[in-house]
This record gives sequence, structure tokens and C-alpha cells, in this order.
Amino acid sequence: MKKLRLCTPGPTEVHPETLLAMAAPVIHHRSRPAVELIGRVHTSLQKLFFTKQRVFMISGSGTSAMEAAVVNHFSPGDEVITIEGGKFGERWSSIARAYGLKVHAVGVEWGTALSPEQLYHELEAHPNSKGVFATCVETSTATLTDIKGLAKMVQRTKAILVVDAVSAIGAVPLKMDEWGVDVVATGSQKAMMLPPGLAFIACSVKAIDMWSNATLPRFYFDLGAMDKAWGKSSTPFTPPISLVVGLEDALLKIEEEGLESVWFTTEALGRAARAGVAGLGLEVYSKQPAPGVTAGLLPEGCDGKKLVNEVRDRFNIFIAGGQGKLAARIIRLSSMGYTDRFDLIAALGAIEKVLCEMGFAPPVPGGAITDAMREMEGA
Amino acid sequence: MKKLRLCTPGPTEVHPETLLAMAAPVIHHRSRPAVELIGRVHTSLQKLFFTKQRVFMISGSGTSAMEAAVVNHFSPGDEVITIEGGKFGERWSSIARAYGLKVHAVGVEWGTALSPEQLYHELEAHPNSKGVFATCVETSTATLTDIKGLAKMVQRTKAILVVDAVSAIGAVPLKMDEWGVDVVATGSQKAMMLPPGLAFIACSVKAIDMWSNATLPRFYFDLGAMDKAWGKSSTPFTPPISLVVGLEDALLKIEEEGLESVWFTTEALGRAARAGVAGLGLEVYSKQPAPGVTAGLLPEGCDGKKLVNEVRDRFNIFIAGGQGKLAARIIRLSSMGYTDRFDLIAALGAIEKVLCEMGFAPPVPGGAITDAMREMEGA
Repeated sequence: MKKLRLCTPGPTEVHPETLLAMAAPVIHHRSRPAVELIGRVHTSLQKLFFTKQRVFMISGSGTSAMEAAVVNHFSPGDEVITIEGGKFGERWSSIARAYGLKVHAVGVEWGTALSPEQLYHELEAHPNSKGVFATCVETSTATLTDIKGLAKMVQRTKAILVVDAVSAIGAVPLKMDEWGVDVVATGSQKAMMLPPGLAFIACSVKAIDMWSNATLPRFYFDLGAMDKAWGKSSTPFTPPISLVVGLEDALLKIEEEGLESVWFTTEALGRAARAGVAGLGLEVYSKQPAPGVTAGLLPEGCDGKKLVNEVRDRFNIFIAGGQGKLAARIIRLSSMGYTDRFDLIAALGAIEKVLCEMGFAPPVPGGAITDAMREMEGA
Repeated sequence: MKKLRLCTPGPTEVHPETLLAMAAPVIHHRSRPAVELIGRVHTSLQKLFFTKQRVFMISGSGTSAMEAAVVNHFSPGDEVITIEGGKFGERWSSIARAYGLKVHAVGVEWGTALSPEQLYHELEAHPNSKGVFATCVETSTATLTDIKGLAKMVQRTKAILVVDAVSAIGAVPLKMDEWGVDVVATGSQKAMMLPPGLAFIACSVKAIDMWSNATLPRFYFDLGAMDKAWGKSSTPFTPPISLVVGLEDALLKIEEEGLESVWFTTEALGRAARAGVAGLGLEVYSKQPAPGVTAGLLPEGCDGKKLVNEVRDRFNIFIAGGQGKLAARIIRLSSMGYTDRFDLIAALGAIEKVLCEMGFAPPVPGGAITDAMREMEGA
């Protein structure tokens, strides 16, 4: 009977209408209805990505699109710069190293973001770099990077800017063509309001020009094959067609609401989540907080794993703990996608209750919820 | 209002209960309920694969598991034998070549299968081969290969036998451990009765021993990482959790029915499909027909694309045409998974009606259905 509330920063809650759309009888992915469907979502995806370029769909997780970004643009030994400000920044380095690239990893204090000026110096220090790998929203630290600023620096060079936009697309402004971002990779289970299993990637002309010279081996992730299929509203391999059906539903919902309005709501909910986290007596972890995900640093001695598990097991509310070196040290809440203010205060209420019982009562009972509500006035 | 019937050999129809199970609110893939779910399906998958080895889940299409089979076991320049008896056999060659392997491609007449004796000679001719790539059910030609026989030949050598089991697992006997098959790769949208988007791969000890020496680059498809995660009932990257929920439901249905019974039914339906296709006045295309998919060769001048489209647009019944050089030349019907005799006769009835209108009336009106029904007596 307990109502399930998914407040994790991915997967995020999926609209019941989208879930039911995906429960319709499966259609064949090469039949005319599927071809027409794929054609329609292609157009919607271009709007969502703010690009005139093609947005390719991959059957896979967000990481599959990240790997596609690596293997299509580079050759063994190529120098690249990766920005490591959290678990997902580190993933860029791991993929690049797995494929034999020469990685200049820029360490960034977790919870902060590399500034365009800092990137400028890195590009000066490594003038042969062919790519810069950044993370728009570092989900593990709930931190936003100034991609527009980074793009200005990378544009002056021969390098391409490759952006992990997994918790970004649909949550924060990311205007691919206007900002001059070269590769945007994302997944379905964040602000795109779908279950996981679909990944997306789009490339600038500058990036596409690198495909033919890139000698890294690829087959499943070959963007050239995807590009050929795109023109026929198709995919090189069987797409997860039920997710594509859901995608159309979710994209229509975003279009109806208006993307600018979705960004505005996400921003307001993010402010509210930070106010709420502070009201719980936690420190907002990130110094450059992202709108769609909020991390709160737990007091010393407070076991984050226990907190997350108790909130889930007793109230069926799913929140996230920390990853990597932040495991058990932080909690994370989503304000992306199909999340509203009442989900947020439900989560804050549950967290407060469990924190109290664990001996970490917040300064003012109910203060977290009041603070969060106040931040949302007018939103 | 028209009832949709999906009679294509993948995707196949998904049970409405499975579709609704997947429409339940999404859970977080790292939470205890998800960990317990993944643990349960791991056990069920081992039964389905007839193996004590670990069966890994990949977020991707069947081809993603095929690529995983290549990149984890080989190094550039390694010699391998591929068996090309259709579009999917050719895919093994394409993947292997994309990764710089030295491919000895054995051409097999479409609609026939390589015999163990023929493979013996190939292994003699290429004694340095480290792998043999076969297709258990070649979906493009509806042909079954004697994997048990091939395994006996490969076992004598240092090579591993890698099997595309995409239209095989759940449709035909494939006893991985008992037969000594080294790598089994499959996808969700065939006899596993799910939408596409999940792939599976399992490896023998002989294959696993090759992982550490295989120098092909890999990250998303790294089986070592999957192996580490498996022990924690997890996956290295976000799994398509709603499909995993559906997987449990589908696997329970197979277990309730009994896998041997499912094979028996598939076999009987396959016989009926072939009788029905012959009754339509078509030639059964394959000389070694697979149980779960049937191909009928159309008479000269009969446009298969038009036939498939008409059957779909007028009756909402999805059947498949041909692929590659068989495009527009054959039609294909599924008898895998959640398909029963009445789906089959519905499809045969619709095909007969359209064939008549196209000027290719079958020899006996209604004969296809009568013949199919007769073949199913006692099944």
C-alpha cells in the first residue's frame, strides 16, 4: 500500500501516462508505424538538444553514448583533456584510457567546477589535445559546470568539446549549436523522464569531420552507421522500441510544458531542495550547485547508507546516497523531470523523521519543509 | 479498433502481464529491491542457459552482446572462423573485421547450415584459429545449425565456440555446459518474450581464461567489470531496470510452463508454420528449418514488401519480409515465445487473402490453415 516516490537523481520518476504508453503492444521496429515514430522523435530530439545536427539513439545506458563519443573521434595515442570533478568526470578518463588515449586528467575538487580560465591554461599546457571531456552536471557531486564558457575556450583550438549531458539535457540550458558544443551525450533516465535503456549522442560538423580519421575500432557504436540509418528514420541495430514509444510521450510532455518553463521549474525546485537540505541541518555539498540534483553533506557520524535505506524501507521513498569517496557521506535528491514541490517536501519530511531517530534532529522541527516551500514561492 | 498481432521473428509479442509489470513505477537500480530482483533473474537466467556460469545482462540490442563476445576474447590479428549463412552470420564477420581480427569466413548457402564435418575441415585448414563464430538460429533464413555437433569439433581445439543464440535461447534446446559451448549471446526480444533493449552473454571457463590476454579495447562491454558486479547482484552501468522487471515476469512464465514444454510447442508451431507456408503455395525457404521462425519463398513476380505492408496496413498483423539479398523475396513468421496456433492461423489467413488479391491465389482456398492445424494435432 505504501506509495512509491522515486526522488533519486536517475532513474527519476516516469509519468504514469508514459509508462502506460510503453505498455501498449510492441510494434516491429522496421515497420512503417515505427519508422514514422522514429522520424517524429528525431525532430523532437533536435529541438531538445538545440541543434540542427542529427541526434542518434543508442540502445544502451548513458555510458554507451560516452563510449561512442570516444571511439568515433579519436585514434590510439591521441592527447585529450578530461575534467575530473566526480565519478562521472573520472569515467571519461577511464573510457579514454581503456582505448589507449593519452589522458591529461585535470583534477577538480569535488563539489566545484573547472572555470573557463582554468581550462584555457590546460589547453595552453597541452596544445596537442584533440578533445576536452567535460561533465555538464556531475551527478555524483550535484555540481554544474559552465559549458558555455568552456566551449568558448575549446573553439579557439583544434580540439572538440565532448560533454556528458546525462543529468543536463532537459534540466538545464544546454544550447549545443549556439554555444559551439561539439559532442553531447546523454541518457534517458534523468530529465528525459524515461526508464533507463536509451542513450543519445549528437555531433557538430567539427566533430563529424573527425570520424573518418579516427582509427579506434567500433561497430555497435559506429556513428557513421547511425548517420546512414538516420536518413531512413532507422537505427543500425534493433532499437528498444518500447522506450522509443515512451520517448515520444515524454518529449511531447516537455514540448507542451515548454522547455524554458521546465528549466525554470527545475531551477526553482533545486533552490528549494538546497534550502530544505540546509533546513535539515546538512551542508549543501556543492559550491556550484546544479539545478536538477542536490547533495547534502551529512554530519560526522551519521551513516548515510542507513539513512537512505530507512527512508526507503519505511516510507517507500527512494533517495540516493553518495558514490565513490562520498559513499555514506551525502544524500542526493532529484529535482529533474517529473518531480514536483510536493515530492520534494515528502522526501524532506521522511529524511527529517529518520534523521531525528538517528540522533541528528534538525535545528528547527519542520524547518526543512518550510524553508523549501518558501524558496518555491512564485515558481 | 483493429487488433494488433505481432507475428515477426523479433520483436515478438509480449504478454500483457509482462507489459503491465514493466509499467509499474520505476525503482532505483541500486536499491535493495533492485538488487534482490537482479539476484533472482541471475539464477533464472542460468537455468535458461543451462549453465552454471554467470549470465551477464547488457543494456543494448543483441548485437551489443555479440560485440562483447568479440572484444573480450581476442586481440588484433587473431585468426577466427566465421560461418556466414545469412545476415547474422555475416554480422560476426563484420564485427570481427571492425576489430582487426583475421577472419576466415566460411560461406554457407543461405537456407542451409554448416555441418560439424565441414567445420572439422575448416578447423584443419586454419589450425591457428582462436575462435569459431556460429549462429544457432539464423533468423534471416529461418535456419537451424547443429550447435551441439559444432561444439564437439571445436572442443578438440584451442578455439572457443561463440554462438549467436538470439533466436535460439528459449526457442530451441541449447545446453551450454553439457554441449561445451563457450560463449552464448542473445537478446530479449525473441523467445525471451520481452521488448528489445536487454542483451545477455555467458562464457565458459575456457573463454573466461582468454579475457586477461585479450588486448582488444573495451569498457562498456568489459566482461571483467560485469563479472565483478554480478557477485553483488549488480551491473557496471545503469541497467534498463524496467526491462529487468519484465524479464523476471517472462522467466517465471517460462518456468511455470516448463522450458521443455516451451521447446515442444515451438517445434510443433514451427512444423505447422511450414505446412501453412506450403499450403499458401510458397516454398519453405530453409533446408534445415528452425523451429521458431519460418521463411516462405514467394513466387516469381510476387512483391514481398507489398505483401508484408498490405497484411499490416489492412489487418494490423505484422509479419516480416526478407533481409539482405532476400529482401522482398521471402516472408517470415514467428513461432517463438508468446505465440500460439491461433496467431499463426490468423497470419496465414491474412496472407492468403492478400496473396489472392495480388494474383497469387494458393492451390486450395483455406488449405494453408487446414494444413497448419493438422500439423498441430496432439501438440
